[in-house]
Amino acid sequence: MSRAHTAAVLPKGSFSDEAAQYFLKDVPVELKYHKLIADVFKSTAKGDTDWSVVPIENTIDGSVSLHIDWLVHEVDLPIRAEWVFPVIQNLVGRQDELSDPGAGTWNPQRIVKVLSHPVAMAQCYEFLRARLPHAELETLASTAEAIRAVRDNPGRGWAAIGTHTAAEDCGLDLLEEAVTDHDNNYTRFLLVGNTPFEKAGASLRKTSILITLPEDYPGALHQVLSAFAWRRINLSKIESRPTKKKLGNYYFFIDIEMSLDTVLLPAAIAEIEAIGCQVRILGSYPSFSYE
Amino acid sequence: MSRAHTAAVLPKGSFSDEAAQYFLKDVPVELKYHKLIADVFKSTAKGDTDWSVVPIENTIDGSVSLHIDWLVHEVDLPIRAEWVFPVIQNLVGRQDELSDPGAGTWNPQRIVKVLSHPVAMAQCYEFLRARLPHAELETLASTAEAIRAVRDNPGRGWAAIGTHTAAEDCGLDLLEEAVTDHDNNYTRFLLVGNTPFEKAGASLRKTSILITLPEDYPGALHQVLSAFAWRRINLSKIESRPTKKKLGNYYFFIDIEMSLDTVLLPAAIAEIEAIGCQVRILGSYPSFSYE
Repeated sequence: MSRAHTAAVLPKGSFSDEAAQYFLKDVPVELKYHKLIADVFKSTAKGDTDWSVVPIENTIDGSVSLHIDWLVHEVDLPIRAEWVFPVIQNLVGRQDELSDPGAGTWNPQRIVKVLSHPVAMAQCYEFLRARLPHAELETLASTAEAIRAVRDNPGRGWAAIGTHTAAEDCGLDLLEEAVTDHDNNYTRFLLVGNTPFEKAGASLRKTSILITLPEDYPGALHQVLSAFAWRRINLSKIESRPTKKKLGNYYFFIDIEMSLDTVLLPAAIAEIEAIGCQVRILGSYPSFSYE
Repeated sequence: MSRAHTAAVLPKGSFSDEAAQYFLKDVPVELKYHKLIADVFKSTAKGDTDWSVVPIENTIDGSVSLHIDWLVHEVDLPIRAEWVFPVIQNLVGRQDELSDPGAGTWNPQRIVKVLSHPVAMAQCYEFLRARLPHAELETLASTAEAIRAVRDNPGRGWAAIGTHTAAEDCGLDLLEEAVTDHDNNYTRFLLVGNTPFEKAGASLRKTSILITLPEDYPGALHQVLSAFAWRRINLSKIESRPTKKKLGNYYFFIDIEMSLDTVLLPAAIAEIEAIGCQVRILGSYPSFSYE
């Protein structure tokens, strides 16, 4: 029997945990939970785990810019895969406690308090204002903690906004599913690590690079993009980030919808380096999406 | 006596509160506190307050992408000013409780637990690992809450990571100042609202625009940037964001180091519109920085 792989991830019941469990369900992998994203990264950097699961866009699990900074400045772990996972928040509580006797459904008037992570609450703002305007809102450090607080306080009219998985783990009911205001909210996750990763069903291959311009002069970015533009190489994301050396000094985080294993992309990168830019390949990897 | 202005901001003791108090200290303005960023925005959109204070980069007060999405999709409030504020986290507790009898300084061994917001903890990761490796870490919804928990639990060996202001409000001591791992961490804040804003001392004027490309074709961004490049107009930030209509459909959030009140910038924008792009001006405003 081959030894199973391991992946470091944010705490049990977090949104990262839910996304990791879904993405890795057909991969023999054991999840190792850590409270801080720094420990998630360090675990893989030290070789204790094969991969780290990192929320990188639109997430409620911490600060995206902090995660990108760690990936760029603190560790050197190639990106092995990305997946895009819908943000689904639910109203969670005890169906019997929050329904009128004999009624089959919950009664909003019976909910006196709603607990959740502040960003999850903001994502469900219109729902809360329309259906539960009378309820007190209490913010906690995570949706998982909010759901545990509801579990530990029966009979008080409490409900939480959180994930399906955390509700199930606590034996609570989904009073109402998918209460997020925009049903097209997606979070993007990366799997990073030194161990190769295999999984079928990718929708495309992508390459992520980091470009540091030789000096801060107007039009430098335009010149860099020329190398991609005339080759008709599509960029799916571009973002400037401060270098941390001084304000006004930037690098660019660029996602390209093409594998490094082609003729055009390595040629474009070689030209960008030739004009004096530093280019770092963060990974060339399969991209998966779930609709 | 002229009526003072009002500004909506995230809760008392939050990092936004500290940044707002600092930036607005010489402006006659009353701060109105709200738990959710949605209520911060809505308060100004409804006309209850003159301005909203919005953390927009590198923040621990919520999700930057959510804040940008609100600014773009949910409200129509022009940017009136921006300021860049250093992220300073401190180790907070009771000096007398955490020092050995007769010693003037705190003893790390007396700290059994450190409480904070998970992102603030991640920002002080190396400090915590080096100085307090034995301490239990507990994450709460905000640094302000962590500091209140320390205030409410004397004699238990607890300390918190949080802001100077929150420590002062709770009558606690700064055991060690500026314990953030990187001393060049900055958060960027915007002041948005329909009321004009005046303050002296800006370091430059900036303009923020949103560009939606006519269709998703390779090189479109390159063409847009040409209009800025040949005029030597410097972009200080560029970021692609999904339009929320469908995946793979993007708009670009661009910050320009030039006032709209010039010859070159309106001309560039007119050309970008002429080639079929939608351009929305988010604001042309003074930029302040604190070193």
